[in-house]
Amino acid sequence: MSGNIFGKMFRVTTWGESHGTAVGCVVDGCPAGLRLSGEDIQRELDRRRPGQSSVTTERAEFDRATILSGVFKGATTGTPISMIVYNRDVDSSKYERIADLLRPGHADFTYQEKYGIRDYRGGGRASARETIGRAAAGSIAKKLLGVRGVEVLAHVTELGGIKAGEVSVDEIRSNVRENPMRCADLTTSKAMYDAVMLAKADGDSLGGVVEIIALHVPAGLGEPVFNKLSADLAGALMSIGAVKGIEIGAGFKSASMRGSEMNDPFRVKDGSIHTSTNHAGGMLGGISTGEPIVCRIAVKPTPSIAKVQQTINIKTMEEVEIRIEGRHDPVILPRIVPVAEAMVSLVLVEHILQSGFIHPLQVK
Amino acid sequence: MSGNIFGKMFRVTTWGESHGTAVGCVVDGCPAGLRLSGEDIQRELDRRRPGQSSVTTERAEFDRATILSGVFKGATTGTPISMIVYNRDVDSSKYERIADLLRPGHADFTYQEKYGIRDYRGGGRASARETIGRAAAGSIAKKLLGVRGVEVLAHVTELGGIKAGEVSVDEIRSNVRENPMRCADLTTSKAMYDAVMLAKADGDSLGGVVEIIALHVPAGLGEPVFNKLSADLAGALMSIGAVKGIEIGAGFKSASMRGSEMNDPFRVKDGSIHTSTNHAGGMLGGISTGEPIVCRIAVKPTPSIAKVQQTINIKTMEEVEIRIEGRHDPVILPRIVPVAEAMVSLVLVEHILQSGFIHPLQVK
Amino acid sequence: MSGNIFGKMFRVTTWGESHGTAVGCVVDGCPAGLRLSGEDIQRELDRRRPGQSSVTTERAEFDRATILSGVFKGATTGTPISMIVYNRDVDSSKYERIADLLRPGHADFTYQEKYGIRDYRGGGRASARETIGRAAAGSIAKKLLGVRGVEVLAHVTELGGIKAGEVSVDEIRSNVRENPMRCADLTTSKAMYDAVMLAKADGDSLGGVVEIIALHVPAGLGEPVFNKLSADLAGALMSIGAVKGIEIGAGFKSASMRGSEMNDPFRVKDGSIHTSTNHAGGMLGGISTGEPIVCRIAVKPTPSIAKVQQTINIKTMEEVEIRIEGRHDPVILPRIVPVAEAMVSLVLVEHILQSGFIHPLQVK
Amino acid sequence: MSGNIFGKMFRVTTWGESHGTAVGCVVDGCPAGLRLSGEDIQRELDRRRPGQSSVTTERAEFDRATILSGVFKGATTGTPISMIVYNRDVDSSKYERIADLLRPGHADFTYQEKYGIRDYRGGGRASARETIGRAAAGSIAKKLLGVRGVEVLAHVTELGGIKAGEVSVDEIRSNVRENPMRCADLTTSKAMYDAVMLAKADGDSLGGVVEIIALHVPAGLGEPVFNKLSADLAGALMSIGAVKGIEIGAGFKSASMRGSEMNDPFRVKDGSIHTSTNHAGGMLGGISTGEPIVCRIAVKPTPSIAKVQQTINIKTMEEVEIRIEGRHDPVILPRIVPVAEAMVSLVLVEHILQSGFIHPLQVK
Repeated sequence: MSGNIFGKMFRVTTWGESHGTAVGCVVDGCPAGLRLSGEDIQRELDRRRPGQSSVTTERAEFDRATILSGVFKGATTGTPISMIVYNRDVDSSKYERIADLLRPGHADFTYQEKYGIRDYRGGGRASARETIGRAAAGSIAKKLLGVRGVEVLAHVTELGGIKAGEVSVDEIRSNVRENPMRCADLTTSKAMYDAVMLAKADGDSLGGVVEIIALHVPAGLGEPVFNKLSADLAGALMSIGAVKGIEIGAGFKSASMRGSEMNDPFRVKDGSIHTSTNHAGGMLGGISTGEPIVCRIAVKPTPSIAKVQQTINIKTMEEVEIRIEGRHDPVILPRIVPVAEAMVSLVLVEHILQSGFIHPLQVK
Repeated sequence: MSGNIFGKMFRVTTWGESHGTAVGCVVDGCPAGLRLSGEDIQRELDRRRPGQSSVTTERAEFDRATILSGVFKGATTGTPISMIVYNRDVDSSKYERIADLLRPGHADFTYQEKYGIRDYRGGGRASARETIGRAAAGSIAKKLLGVRGVEVLAHVTELGGIKAGEVSVDEIRSNVRENPMRCADLTTSKAMYDAVMLAKADGDSLGGVVEIIALHVPAGLGEPVFNKLSADLAGALMSIGAVKGIEIGAGFKSASMRGSEMNDPFRVKDGSIHTSTNHAGGMLGGISTGEPIVCRIAVKPTPSIAKVQQTINIKTMEEVEIRIEGRHDPVILPRIVPVAEAMVSLVLVEHILQSGFIHPLQVK
Repeated sequence: MSGNIFGKMFRVTTWGESHGTAVGCVVDGCPAGLRLSGEDIQRELDRRRPGQSSVTTERAEFDRATILSGVFKGATTGTPISMIVYNRDVDSSKYERIADLLRPGHADFTYQEKYGIRDYRGGGRASARETIGRAAAGSIAKKLLGVRGVEVLAHVTELGGIKAGEVSVDEIRSNVRENPMRCADLTTSKAMYDAVMLAKADGDSLGGVVEIIALHVPAGLGEPVFNKLSADLAGALMSIGAVKGIEIGAGFKSASMRGSEMNDPFRVKDGSIHTSTNHAGGMLGGISTGEPIVCRIAVKPTPSIAKVQQTINIKTMEEVEIRIEGRHDPVILPRIVPVAEAMVSLVLVEHILQSGFIHPLQVK
Repeated sequence: MSGNIFGKMFRVTTWGESHGTAVGCVVDGCPAGLRLSGEDIQRELDRRRPGQSSVTTERAEFDRATILSGVFKGATTGTPISMIVYNRDVDSSKYERIADLLRPGHADFTYQEKYGIRDYRGGGRASARETIGRAAAGSIAKKLLGVRGVEVLAHVTELGGIKAGEVSVDEIRSNVRENPMRCADLTTSKAMYDAVMLAKADGDSLGGVVEIIALHVPAGLGEPVFNKLSADLAGALMSIGAVKGIEIGAGFKSASMRGSEMNDPFRVKDGSIHTSTNHAGGMLGGISTGEPIVCRIAVKPTPSIAKVQQTINIKTMEEVEIRIEGRHDPVILPRIVPVAEAMVSLVLVEHILQSGFIHPLQVK
């Protein structure tokens, strides 16, 4: 059944395989009148594309996006916006050799079980390349959020067991984009980098935690009881490959807090209602409070490692060893940062439209 | 916008307020031919109803469910199954007094912001009572899963910072139902009980962690890339009130693991493919592997506490103190156990139907 | 799969069988702040209930609706509105006798084929009684439309081959409600009545045409290319039992018109853009023009007739004769009038909300 | 809001403007293992492309479709199938001149009202070119239907007031494809052709009726009460530009029939249940009976005509005359035939998948 369409009012369809002809997406439901150019898309794609540093895969893709429809004279027209990125640096040779071996931690086995057939080249659809469509659609969502003053920021807060120190929003804004680890705490960032290099040398990989913050989100977003903002964020973030956990505000720490600690007291500030703490992470009853939205995702270590692993040949059903060659990220965290921002942005735009906070005719 | 409908093929609509006339749900899309009686529903409702022990609210509700449609001669007919539970022990007096005060940690503020009006009696729709509809619908999902041999079990693994020891599936099966803490580790359960009594005496409340396990789930469930089984589970579980985090398999622990530790090696066992560990929690690429599905949710401490708290009177916009009376659970964990099972069951039935693993005409 | 939920933002779930305990519906997504009482619902139910004249079934149902949730202090709260009508005058005896005979023109055969089981009492779910939920939900949609000044009117324009003369909107407003045939042309109405009595005496039934007009619909409603307003109206109206055709504006007549006749010329009137004719029926490109929306539906003669018919006993697979007793409408047209209004109202509210023309917080 | 996605399980997203870079579609939810090549797509596109005869527009488009994803080694993989057709013969010059004039009968006015901006070149999204995506997706649906033995055929039964005689299914199969009028009654076809040439010479255009028949549809398709097969067919067909009416079986004729005429008697034939007539058009209670599905659509005359018409300049708000140049079809009927087949095929595949009649793993 269909699973590649995200959203209800602002709907994104993504498509494409790692080693196929192209990857892309269609955004349906974008309000008309939004200024949009190929550069808006490119900026986000550049943040996730491979080959940016020694902690990412060496596959050389420039990921040039082309807008094929839905934009006229520099503005959206309300019709579907189709975007395409052709795959260029495709080398499937290393995959032919392991076509019958199930890569541990990968989706080879489950795709085979589900579909009875799979495109094994580069992981097919179950590849990080699938997130290009998410990032492209997310870039439009971000522009729309900008109309309403909403800002979405993500940064790496933990990597290979190394935790970053507390950082301010300004530090996130200024330090993350240029830093290869996408960590706002520049000191820790260096230690993270060293850890990655060490793991890579070891033929191994690392995981970590990404925090996503959304600022100036209007109070009132979220549709109880099943489409709470929190629920939709959780579903959206968990749909990213390699994500194994999601928490909001105090998250798992809240399990050991008392009600009197956890509850955020209400205060009046500049004539409007605020909470003096934000353990709730910007949502109560699944509806935004107006305080910053704060979520964190647990990202598992990249499954593709050079180390020898135990697995099965599905043709012969023999237990065999596998050693995965090819070009892989020893850590996926830095490249998940823009994708996590994209997913949170898509959820926020969806709920802003659902709540009527952007009237379709008021986008400019 | 509509947010009270869950699912696509097996669709559940829940409705009702804590102190309204009744609460209930409609299940649309249940295959025909499933044996179903009021007792099937009642069994699950009895597990979540209040007044079962001193760790739950004293509100005396027997929560008698009536099936109003969709069942003929003891079997489902394929038409919508409507269920109703009338509210009996409603005492709104204590809420009238605090109608203008925002209860910290509750949805009072956000409902007011979103809707401009709210039913403040007992929390209105943002009440634990809302989960009756989920449990009732979940009981049908569980019966359907039974047809396919799938079993869903939840248990409390942490409460007020006290962690339960490792338990076997058999211990969960035999210890959880009768234990007021819904903890399978009976020794720890006693300590948890004491912690709750202490917090209650203190006018305070506790949170914790619930683990949900699904056994014998067929491989192949989940619809990449946005409706992965993991994503739908995360969204469903996060939609439960008080849940602040969700993790799958190794979850947040995977953030500090190496790829070589995290990846589950494939093995042949009795002629079929298995993994020798289950850090993935039963899903790879968001599709079920056939291994047990394992998720955990972080549940915040109940926001309603007797302790004095700082808040605001929304009419006068003055900062005031609030002391919440009424009948409240000092910990919501035990009552969330059946609700978490219900949500996981609803997600699994949905995906089983989507995948065609139960043919509508083969249910018996 | 689920088929009993209508709409996306303003979602209606209907449930219930003809001879079950009750019938009802849940409306999810109604904006908060709408004044609503049981009388608003009752008014519409009274228009469709049986026993109003000799041209309708003699089943004596008063169809008292109760609102169970979603309304607080006389206004909607934004939470689901559940409504219930208990079935009272249920006499299933005549159905037991023909439980194994397929009634020609009815859904007996297809329900049996699809579900392998069916509630044969009174047609089960495939009964005109199913439309109570539609009418109840439609009454809320109508109130919402009233906020925006939109009016939806339906009337019988043809019955048993007798065509009504041209009537004005004022004639529809004043003549239809009190007239048992729901025909605005009072002279023709008398002839229609006689035709029905004649058919009834004959043990037979009649069909006809109902026209639905929506006035003051804002320009801009409809979501090309698949959710054009015209497409959603067609789907909604065709979902009513007994409807076999739907046309918009000139409809089937347009098939024999030339472009120069069909095209409605644009004119300026009172400073705004209008068309001097309305062959388009108020929609161009599937989007409302601001001119009246005009559709017509073809309603087949009631399938339940007293005349002897040829059919099959599905148990024995023998060809047998059937003579349907029970209490039936010799013509369903008058009772379809409020249901057709309800469905058009639901579609319009859906599109008004989708288009942002009623901001959720602006309903009063 | 999003309106360019069709279906639930088998979901089609179409995109693209008449004079934009390209048009295309994404099919999400196609079962894996279906043999599929570019030629399967091309065959259907060739049937709808312009320039095939003197009754169609002279725009010279070869409409070469490329499959970009979702197919591996000649078979579908269960992932989204993205298809693209680049626009080649684009001449927007004639549209620049009339950019501010509302073409009567076209969507210029409503797009402008809805979106506040519109791509006026060639009608933008509201162009017959939009149907390329439908035809491409429909070609996959047809292949899937073939797996189950279902055949969908459409033919012109009326044009410019000229009605075709009764034809057999074999005549439709053999006469329609090669005949420029797509009419199975070859004698009438000649008269239709002459009528079109006459209208064209006159600077005018004609409308007509297309009948769609689906053979060997299994009994049991359709999801009462809102997603009846009839309702979904009506919505799907009405979403095609220029369609103003849809009827099923006896359709509007049923309005003047008696129940005893309309009801199709049940008979046993070769051990299974059939009806001796098919006034119901293959559906009862909105569920397929197993008899042929029969629907007809009313198609209005092409709105683009060379004749002078009255309209408005939306910039100056002056009433002006318009004479539409450019390359237009004097009748759209022949080119709607494959599109109508595509829409019916999409609805049937959707319902077959919903009903579990094709198990995803059984497609070969």
